[in-house]
Amino acid sequence: MRLRAGSFLAPTIRAAAPLPTFPTVTFIDKLSARWQAADSLLCVGLDPDPSRFPAQLRDRDDAIFAFCAAIADATAEYACAFKPQVAYFASARAEDQLERLLAHLRQRHPQVPVVLDAKRGDIGATAEHYAREAFERYGADAVTLSPFMGRDSIEPFMAYADRGIFVLCRTSNPGGDDLQMLEVGGEKLYERVARLAAEKWNRSGQLGLVVGATYPAELARVRAIAGGLPLLVPGIGAQGGDVQASVVAGQSAGGTGMLINSSRAILYAGTGGDFAQAAATAARRTRDDINRYRRR
Amino acid sequence: MRLRAGSFLAPTIRAAAPLPTFPTVTFIDKLSARWQAADSLLCVGLDPDPSRFPAQLRDRDDAIFAFCAAIADATAEYACAFKPQVAYFASARAEDQLERLLAHLRQRHPQVPVVLDAKRGDIGATAEHYAREAFERYGADAVTLSPFMGRDSIEPFMAYADRGIFVLCRTSNPGGDDLQMLEVGGEKLYERVARLAAEKWNRSGQLGLVVGATYPAELARVRAIAGGLPLLVPGIGAQGGDVQASVVAGQSAGGTGMLINSSRAILYAGTGGDFAQAAATAARRTRDDINRYRRR
Repeated sequence: MRLRAGSFLAPTIRAAAPLPTFPTVTFIDKLSARWQAADSLLCVGLDPDPSRFPAQLRDRDDAIFAFCAAIADATAEYACAFKPQVAYFASARAEDQLERLLAHLRQRHPQVPVVLDAKRGDIGATAEHYAREAFERYGADAVTLSPFMGRDSIEPFMAYADRGIFVLCRTSNPGGDDLQMLEVGGEKLYERVARLAAEKWNRSGQLGLVVGATYPAELARVRAIAGGLPLLVPGIGAQGGDVQASVVAGQSAGGTGMLINSSRAILYAGTGGDFAQAAATAARRTRDDINRYRRR
Repeated sequence: MRLRAGSFLAPTIRAAAPLPTFPTVTFIDKLSARWQAADSLLCVGLDPDPSRFPAQLRDRDDAIFAFCAAIADATAEYACAFKPQVAYFASARAEDQLERLLAHLRQRHPQVPVVLDAKRGDIGATAEHYAREAFERYGADAVTLSPFMGRDSIEPFMAYADRGIFVLCRTSNPGGDDLQMLEVGGEKLYERVARLAAEKWNRSGQLGLVVGATYPAELARVRAIAGGLPLLVPGIGAQGGDVQASVVAGQSAGGTGMLINSSRAILYAGTGGDFAQAAATAARRTRDDINRYRRR
């Protein structure tokens, strides 16, 4: 994955200032190091639903932060990444707790990259504001984006040249078929998205794709198209995706390349005072289950 | 636009509880009444950029709220809708000011519908949380959504049966071509989105479409496909869209059917103490300019 500056851009975009460079390690480097160090492809999804919190947390003003931090601390050793889902914080007026959670993760688990699941998609100045939200306000290592508005909805996020971007490609829900499975010039729309993300759009070399675990054949197609790009794979566990089929279809040549997300099955593995320990056990088992099918 | 309950749904969705009904006026009814009462198709976009605020507001802790409220109060009589853009509030950690702004608009301008420009797109429980954010936390009359994840990313928002939903269809940016202009079975992808939103997806009868002003021919295609659906049209003014061409292409048979958005040209029409009056003048002129080309 190399920078392809200016190779495809429309004149209005080519005229923009060069992408800034950061002296930090890139998202891809951080993720690659973590895959090795933790021997894990498990991404722990942080989707905090207060109605499912253990009783001892429910009355705390900062229950959402406290729950997520406890889960993260208990599961970090088994995780290649954390993925907080913005919607759960936004519906609860808890952006302050999301900020605090990201600060906690940076401080306690600096080696575990954080993917902010926001699925933003906008252009121009508006996209710049969303990029600032994800990368400056929250300090995320990576963000999820929708491809529907095209290359100039991705560009403003690549101004943060060290940060990762996961573009929605083939989603795990039945309605994903409505657009993603349409034939567009000899391939499906999701295949076109994979090709764009792997090639023309990937100026920063920090792009990845979101591909649901519920369609292993399409996961394999995306892997074939996208080369070594990291694939964020939701849909195992509660959504019914099969771990073996997903790993076999989605892993890279080196047996990594995936962030296999589990949220509810880990977060709510226990409901009492031992919820964090139950989450750790569920995370360890899921990591081990995934590792059983990895190419070594 | 009639409710088409159950006519297209997959079994898993058909089995869901019936959509709740609300005793309030629907978004479409409120918008239709406003088109008539204000004799306006102008949507005032609220994209607050503090670096462009007049000097007397800059040092206020609630400058974003104060600026947007002043603009709204000055332009309301010329507006068929307001459209706050969430990204500007999110990057500034100003969700509290967005809540306060929506409360202000409901109280002072209850007859002017508010479209929350969020371009959300997710599924299942996550989409439910985004719907709660838009319709309960902020109390918006309508929201913008991405169609990429398909029908089950729209459904949770239709649980609020009186609220409006604008689905991205043909966006005003050059990169919009990347996916939206692809051929899919004899039509372009954006035409397919228009067809889905007008027919299969429109269970609540409260759907509309986002179509940029920069492509009048495609605006006309969307109008032909989508019948009477309201079209939210960004891209005039700063983005270069032509008012005459847009109105001629996009208006409904009755000379309404559009929310033609202008943000920067109104918000920053003046930079001194008279910024609100300058905004009012710009809004009135834009409304009048639009009205010149309407079918009466």
